[in-house]
Amino acid sequence: MNNTEPALLVVSAHAGDFVWRAGGAIAAAAQRGERAVVVCLSYGERGESAKAWREGKGLEEIKAIRREEAENAAAALGAEVRFLDAGDYPLVPTRELVDQLVQIYREVNPTVVLTHPLVDPYNGDHPAAARMALDARVLAQAIGYDAPGDPLGAPPVFFFEPHQPEQCDFKPNVLLDITEAFAAKRKAMECLAAQQHMWDYYTDLATRRGVQVKRNAGPNLGFTTDTKGEAYMRYYPQVTTTLA
Amino acid sequence: MNNTEPALLVVSAHAGDFVWRAGGAIAAAAQRGERAVVVCLSYGERGESAKAWREGKGLEEIKAIRREEAENAAAALGAEVRFLDAGDYPLVPTRELVDQLVQIYREVNPTVVLTHPLVDPYNGDHPAAARMALDARVLAQAIGYDAPGDPLGAPPVFFFEPHQPEQCDFKPNVLLDITEAFAAKRKAMECLAAQQHMWDYYTDLATRRGVQVKRNAGPNLGFTTDTKGEAYMRYYPQVTTTLA
Amino acid sequence: MNNTEPALLVVSAHAGDFVWRAGGAIAAAAQRGERAVVVCLSYGERGESAKAWREGKGLEEIKAIRREEAENAAAALGAEVRFLDAGDYPLVPTRELVDQLVQIYREVNPTVVLTHPLVDPYNGDHPAAARMALDARVLAQAIGYDAPGDPLGAPPVFFFEPHQPEQCDFKPNVLLDITEAFAAKRKAMECLAAQQHMWDYYTDLATRRGVQVKRNAGPNLGFTTDTKGEAYMRYYPQVTTTLA
Amino acid sequence: MNNTEPALLVVSAHAGDFVWRAGGAIAAAAQRGERAVVVCLSYGERGESAKAWREGKGLEEIKAIRREEAENAAAALGAEVRFLDAGDYPLVPTRELVDQLVQIYREVNPTVVLTHPLVDPYNGDHPAAARMALDARVLAQAIGYDAPGDPLGAPPVFFFEPHQPEQCDFKPNVLLDITEAFAAKRKAMECLAAQQHMWDYYTDLATRRGVQVKRNAGPNLGFTTDTKGEAYMRYYPQVTTTLA
Amino acid sequence: MNNTEPALLVVSAHAGDFVWRAGGAIAAAAQRGERAVVVCLSYGERGESAKAWREGKGLEEIKAIRREEAENAAAALGAEVRFLDAGDYPLVPTRELVDQLVQIYREVNPTVVLTHPLVDPYNGDHPAAARMALDARVLAQAIGYDAPGDPLGAPPVFFFEPHQPEQCDFKPNVLLDITEAFAAKRKAMECLAAQQHMWDYYTDLATRRGVQVKRNAGPNLGFTTDTKGEAYMRYYPQVTTTLA
Amino acid sequence: MNNTEPALLVVSAHAGDFVWRAGGAIAAAAQRGERAVVVCLSYGERGESAKAWREGKGLEEIKAIRREEAENAAAALGAEVRFLDAGDYPLVPTRELVDQLVQIYREVNPTVVLTHPLVDPYNGDHPAAARMALDARVLAQAIGYDAPGDPLGAPPVFFFEPHQPEQCDFKPNVLLDITEAFAAKRKAMECLAAQQHMWDYYTDLATRRGVQVKRNAGPNLGFTTDTKGEAYMRYYPQVTTTLA
Repeated sequence: MNNTEPALLVVSAHAGDFVWRAGGAIAAAAQRGERAVVVCLSYGERGESAKAWREGKGLEEIKAIRREEAENAAAALGAEVRFLDAGDYPLVPTRELVDQLVQIYREVNPTVVLTHPLVDPYNGDHPAAARMALDARVLAQAIGYDAPGDPLGAPPVFFFEPHQPEQCDFKPNVLLDITEAFAAKRKAMECLAAQQHMWDYYTDLATRRGVQVKRNAGPNLGFTTDTKGEAYMRYYPQVTTTLA
Repeated sequence: MNNTEPALLVVSAHAGDFVWRAGGAIAAAAQRGERAVVVCLSYGERGESAKAWREGKGLEEIKAIRREEAENAAAALGAEVRFLDAGDYPLVPTRELVDQLVQIYREVNPTVVLTHPLVDPYNGDHPAAARMALDARVLAQAIGYDAPGDPLGAPPVFFFEPHQPEQCDFKPNVLLDITEAFAAKRKAMECLAAQQHMWDYYTDLATRRGVQVKRNAGPNLGFTTDTKGEAYMRYYPQVTTTLA
Repeated sequence: MNNTEPALLVVSAHAGDFVWRAGGAIAAAAQRGERAVVVCLSYGERGESAKAWREGKGLEEIKAIRREEAENAAAALGAEVRFLDAGDYPLVPTRELVDQLVQIYREVNPTVVLTHPLVDPYNGDHPAAARMALDARVLAQAIGYDAPGDPLGAPPVFFFEPHQPEQCDFKPNVLLDITEAFAAKRKAMECLAAQQHMWDYYTDLATRRGVQVKRNAGPNLGFTTDTKGEAYMRYYPQVTTTLA
Repeated sequence: MNNTEPALLVVSAHAGDFVWRAGGAIAAAAQRGERAVVVCLSYGERGESAKAWREGKGLEEIKAIRREEAENAAAALGAEVRFLDAGDYPLVPTRELVDQLVQIYREVNPTVVLTHPLVDPYNGDHPAAARMALDARVLAQAIGYDAPGDPLGAPPVFFFEPHQPEQCDFKPNVLLDITEAFAAKRKAMECLAAQQHMWDYYTDLATRRGVQVKRNAGPNLGFTTDTKGEAYMRYYPQVTTTLA
Repeated sequence: MNNTEPALLVVSAHAGDFVWRAGGAIAAAAQRGERAVVVCLSYGERGESAKAWREGKGLEEIKAIRREEAENAAAALGAEVRFLDAGDYPLVPTRELVDQLVQIYREVNPTVVLTHPLVDPYNGDHPAAARMALDARVLAQAIGYDAPGDPLGAPPVFFFEPHQPEQCDFKPNVLLDITEAFAAKRKAMECLAAQQHMWDYYTDLATRRGVQVKRNAGPNLGFTTDTKGEAYMRYYPQVTTTLA
Repeated sequence: MNNTEPALLVVSAHAGDFVWRAGGAIAAAAQRGERAVVVCLSYGERGESAKAWREGKGLEEIKAIRREEAENAAAALGAEVRFLDAGDYPLVPTRELVDQLVQIYREVNPTVVLTHPLVDPYNGDHPAAARMALDARVLAQAIGYDAPGDPLGAPPVFFFEPHQPEQCDFKPNVLLDITEAFAAKRKAMECLAAQQHMWDYYTDLATRRGVQVKRNAGPNLGFTTDTKGEAYMRYYPQVTTTLA
């Protein structure tokens, strides 16, 4: 019923989230020749554009800037990007928005899904996005749900890392080696001009998670001193034919 | 420093645990041509041999029976088995026992470790075995620990399923497809003659976990209606180069 | 203010849930001569009727089939059944639906309430039903809530078992012996013709929970080898005059 | 194999714990004509006798005082009491002490067991006592464990309330109505002369838990304004033939 | 951008909550000469006015009574009080209500925020109020959120104590000494005439929490035998320049 | 009974832990003129001296090196340091070791205690040290415990940050501003010559925790862009006279 082409779907509350938090995974998928689709539910125009507001820019102008930045970043990662323009701060879950996501699931038929974790005391939009991403995934699986396309399979879901992981009950159970993909991630981060202070911050984080990649790896996996990593939380049990 | 041969190490409190709980993983490893080593800390002579006691058998006789059964079961799975004869009910953790385990880690150099979960309100020996298995793994990693062989790498650890999973805080995060290996597991179970009522019980469990394998699998993985499964809890984060 | 007639109220998201998950408790109540009322918030027409959709049936036809099956199953258990036809996949919580439930609470005056657990990563309708059932119970207790009838007492609430219990944080703290009631449950299951593969699955589960009934029972309670069980999670503290 | 006489076994770290924390349950059992046996692992001579130490009393004198107080309190409750004199602050778990408890389990054949919760950041002796009580209960169940008497059944275990419940992860799931038994509990408390400030403290607590008894009770259970309560945490699932 | 005047903001679901649960903190702030603003989202007219309903009073009359009581209580504590009259049982979260709260945050510019905990199985209005209070706090921090005034800083949030703390996952991590403020709290409680049985109940609670204040205090802090306390749960990490 | 001089006691499993994890808190205390005492239970000679072992050094030589490094680091922080030389990998808890700690508590009379968190799947010595530090603190409070000096008060305990915080259930609830003290911490780190790669790692961590200090601070606290931080977990409830 489903094709077997690997495809990555990323559901992001704001226009920048997918870069900082999952840029390595996205770039790695693209580098393997896989399709990667990013859905930005909002532009982060109110809640994540403080600099632009302080400079006196208007709402539409800010949205346009954020959109362009996100398009450039997605291109740098090798991903498609779509904007649902649902508004932020707050991002309000609606039936319609969930339905749009169901249709995207049915169309993209992802084999892997990435989104925010379900808890974030610093930002209500992030869990709201995650809940919609998860709800839509379940709805898309039902043959009886009225949307074009075949029912979805059961793609695994991974939560990407929030800004203050411990406060978000974020306990990584997957450490992704993004060493090869990191150059593309850095380039994508540099597309987000207004948040230049974050470039080094997230480079340092990649180094820190890279150290954990090495510490948790089995023997002889050949990690080097400049290993970079990203941390994820797998939401559903892993299905496998080999323990490793 | 470490070789790259895959090797499975199973640390089991009693002589039967490895069969019911991890027989599929062990047989699968053996079928892939990998080394599998089972360590039975005790024979389960006091706590898991009720039938023999009711029949009036003596302690040494019971130990001999359990040993022979476990040897046969290990052979059916394709694994080596070692008995540390540390006594059960209670299995008392000691420095010496942990040191024996360190030496086995250094010798076997496992790439995967299986043991009991850390909580079991029905059986104190199980968590005791798990704590020793985990402690020994960390000690074996230290170059300064005084034991023969090279320091261990960082093999992943998986907890196998206890008898009453929910009461043991056992939330499976890995579902292993053991369909191919199940015939060997069944054969190994049948080596444990005194516990015949368990053969069907654990066959049913394999079916149930198999249903979950299918439900949680990504699309098009080709699971069939007689898929069999085993459930595991990964203790350390998974390290990977690809999310899947 | 309240009568003292025991009455069981079951709030079920879809038309089949009450059979698989709580059929034993319902049949047992009916066999004791107690009133049992099942409320199906939806027919499960979209999310739990895959076979009918694959056969090309239409929405209204499917709802009619599911309704008839549920009526038959309820009859087999000895329970009344009501259908609120609120739609599924998604089941959307509304003030009106909660108000309908309040009115049912006030009318039925249940002494025991059964519903889904609050967490289910595989099915958003289940927790939605549970939250409405719990909210309505609290509202029905308030004399100031504008609905006919006397304020509700404080009936205990039990969550019945989800399909993948460990993934739903379902840790049973009540094991119900349903040995006597099981024949009725099996008969009710067989009313759900489209889900024949579930009959044996839930019979096996009853056996498995029956084993746990025996293992956790106090001495000399006389359980036999064919003891059947259902697992529940008590939501509020048990009030009792005797520890047992 | 086991008799069917109800019997209550209470495992208490120090000589006073059983009075403050479980006096109501003990008195209620005695008032029902059931056997109640209290085991005090220590006298609480170092850690819970501050007043006596400040008065300059010596160790043996303090132990004698605490013993006499506990004997009087047990008598007021209608319970037998035994002292294992294992020392406190710290109470050190040993094989021998656990073996003594196994023998008591086999002899008393309790149908209900009460002990401390497993967490107490204010007092290490309490969890130590609980772990030994739980370990011994499991050992006593094994026919192969070398101790006189028949193997134990599976008596339920309840943790009684610690001094600062929230800090001890103590979430009561059983609220016991001790209204009838409270007079005996108060009398027993008054046997502990050195801790007079606790008499009112634990009377107030009984009132507070009594309010919760009423709030959580089902309708028409006839609780009055002077209902007294004790809070417990059930450790194993409740086995029952009726949800209530 | 923000002034440095300390100001306390209390978000309360019903008209009485702030008195029973946070009266000491409010009075203490007022006694230090700080501004204290209480927002009552509803009057508790349906869910917390049983006595008035039983006396046959009407909805508007009850609201007027509750309002007057709350005004008197606030005055006794030295606080301003505002009523949003959003209705209770259920208190329904809306965008408009959250927006009203954002505007209050921007106007009051609180340095400390108090509200209900996020879990309460006995009362859905309490968590609803808490979620709105938390959401509004985050929105008020965004310069892009369209409301008058400057963006909010990051005031700490404390959850006050619910009626049955253990059932609400309420684990106090702050114990506030309210000894000096207690007389004012008692006076405020006495303004709530319809709930006279609560006056002693919450006085006893203050004594109990006062005992815990003393037990958990560092040495030589000079607590006396009549120390009164209130318990709180800090939601965000404490920021400090000195560990103490 | 207790003096009122502030004093900091740090209980560290190995010789280096106190520097990386709590160097800022220690230096800050010393800069305020307070006494700071560090207890190293072991030198970390086996488990945390890989470089020396690879260079072929012997056990006693390594212990001497680690001791000298730690003495230098403590001096750089302004702290006293004591070595109990209890051995590492494993650090085995004993009655004698706990008694030594009790005596230190009684002598130093700390007003603040720092130690490892209770969970660390990567290093069993860390929780072992924490448990002993906590047990000894409780024992030292008892007037009946046989050790010189007055009974201890109730100093707060803070767990310092482990290497992989999320895997150790480390959820910081205190963020300490160490900006002023950071120069001393860096100097102390540089005393640990064999672990040069850690200097920058822990400097980056201080920056990261500094960002969180700023994000979680109340308004107008004047944090600058080079704010440095350390994260802690408070174990007992905070006692305070003012919420802030």
